[in-house]
Amino acid sequence: MIGVDWGTSGFRAFRLAPDGTILDRHEAARGITQIADGDFAGCLRGAIGGWLADGETRVLLSGMIGSRQGWVEAPYLPCPANAADLADALVPVPFDDATTLLVPGLSDSDEAGVPEVMRGEETQIIGVLAGLEEGITCLPGSHSKWARIGGGRITAYRTYLSGEAFAALRGGTILGRMMQDGPDDAAGFEQGLARSLDPGHLLHHLFGVRSLGLFGRLSEQASASYLSGLLIGHEVRAARPAGQTVHLIGAAALCALYARAITACGGAPVIETADAAARGLAIIGRIARWT
Amino acid sequence: MIGVDWGTSGFRAFRLAPDGTILDRHEAARGITQIADGDFAGCLRGAIGGWLADGETRVLLSGMIGSRQGWVEAPYLPCPANAADLADALVPVPFDDATTLLVPGLSDSDEAGVPEVMRGEETQIIGVLAGLEEGITCLPGSHSKWARIGGGRITAYRTYLSGEAFAALRGGTILGRMMQDGPDDAAGFEQGLARSLDPGHLLHHLFGVRSLGLFGRLSEQASASYLSGLLIGHEVRAARPAGQTVHLIGAAALCALYARAITACGGAPVIETADAAARGLAIIGRIARWT
Repeated sequence: MIGVDWGTSGFRAFRLAPDGTILDRHEAARGITQIADGDFAGCLRGAIGGWLADGETRVLLSGMIGSRQGWVEAPYLPCPANAADLADALVPVPFDDATTLLVPGLSDSDEAGVPEVMRGEETQIIGVLAGLEEGITCLPGSHSKWARIGGGRITAYRTYLSGEAFAALRGGTILGRMMQDGPDDAAGFEQGLARSLDPGHLLHHLFGVRSLGLFGRLSEQASASYLSGLLIGHEVRAARPAGQTVHLIGAAALCALYARAITACGGAPVIETADAAARGLAIIGRIARWT
Repeated sequence: MIGVDWGTSGFRAFRLAPDGTILDRHEAARGITQIADGDFAGCLRGAIGGWLADGETRVLLSGMIGSRQGWVEAPYLPCPANAADLADALVPVPFDDATTLLVPGLSDSDEAGVPEVMRGEETQIIGVLAGLEEGITCLPGSHSKWARIGGGRITAYRTYLSGEAFAALRGGTILGRMMQDGPDDAAGFEQGLARSLDPGHLLHHLFGVRSLGLFGRLSEQASASYLSGLLIGHEVRAARPAGQTVHLIGAAALCALYARAITACGGAPVIETADAAARGLAIIGRIARWT
């Protein structure tokens, strides 16, 4: 089968063996916002036409391609859900002669009844947590997701705007004027992380990025990493990982920073190195009804 | 005497009677970042030359004009400080035939030893708190300042980046795409304020601005006010005004929003309507050594 993780800004297609082995892959900067005239079929044909011609007949899609801005809108499935629940809720997509299905996103609501949404992360979590009955996963990024696993299902999750807030604060406030581009600064990150120990004071801590710089106690080289440590620290503390194993799914460098913060908060981070999306697509595809 | 509140983006000059009455005023969008070639003397001459020709001989300046980016850099005076302490630390500025002095900024450091800085707000606080022995003041804005008064002195203060964070989040994240310009939405503000009751979860609450919008539970008209309520609520909760009178100094509309949040947190807001900068300049000028 063919699995496609199709997000807002990226496109990753995998040719998968029945056991989930990745036989071939195709990645492109062809996220759903970059497809002219909504010609998703044309884009997909261009990317996986060779595999189809070679005999593949099944295509499974996950990610923002199933959103209102995507190809076909797939209603959210509410938590709790496992791979079988997702496989039962696949949405068909008309596409040439291939049987094409879409993994729905997953919804939840927090203690205050505020809704939660994800599209694509549910498939990555399924890929990493195959066989895990209990645990916590964290998918850091623009909109970080922390999901709780219980009884083999994704039972609940929370989203944090940390990554996007970092970019906006760096790009749109006086803090960014004191930041030099360059490699991550480990000491600066630790300093920001330590500062975040005092929860509930993020807006005050943000001003400190400036005042520490003014007094020469935070260099322009270290300042961006300090802000990153501050925001990641506030996020991780709010997620309360103390005493728990947290499975990190995402880009290696970002996962390493989150692992530092999780350890500082008393949790036990495990950075998952598997290609989570491909594995999740293979798992869901294996139990899907294709006819 | 002449008092001048000269900040980053604005210039306000007052001709003051010995009792502090404002005899005349001149305001301009001539903040220190808008003065070409650092010609502060020329700008000041243009604004108050008439009053000088009319017999005024004393000029007292406050605000960012005393910063490194300003005319003459005045070292920060550390807290605690009162009007007499500030008057003792005035810095002379060479300017034509007028005796010209500069009010220094005030520094502090928080529980974690992170520095605090203000320039200009100390003069406004002095103006409003004349005669007050104990209390709290809040100056909302891009960098909100909360100051504690004890024994007639400004004993400590904390800064929150709330205003700048609001602008950056609105302008630089997906949240802003769901916001329509328009009048403040009181119900949206209250909804965001109520959400902020759960401290330490600001980064999660920010994502809720988007998800509530996605599910039609927050309109594009109300969304900016919701974000404002969320940030102001988090700031006010961190400042812990419960059981205390908080003197608000600033723009009327913004002070009204803060008053709502202070009340919701169990504090008693008082919106100060006096021209705080002019009053503070008059008070400090009256006890300054001009010769």
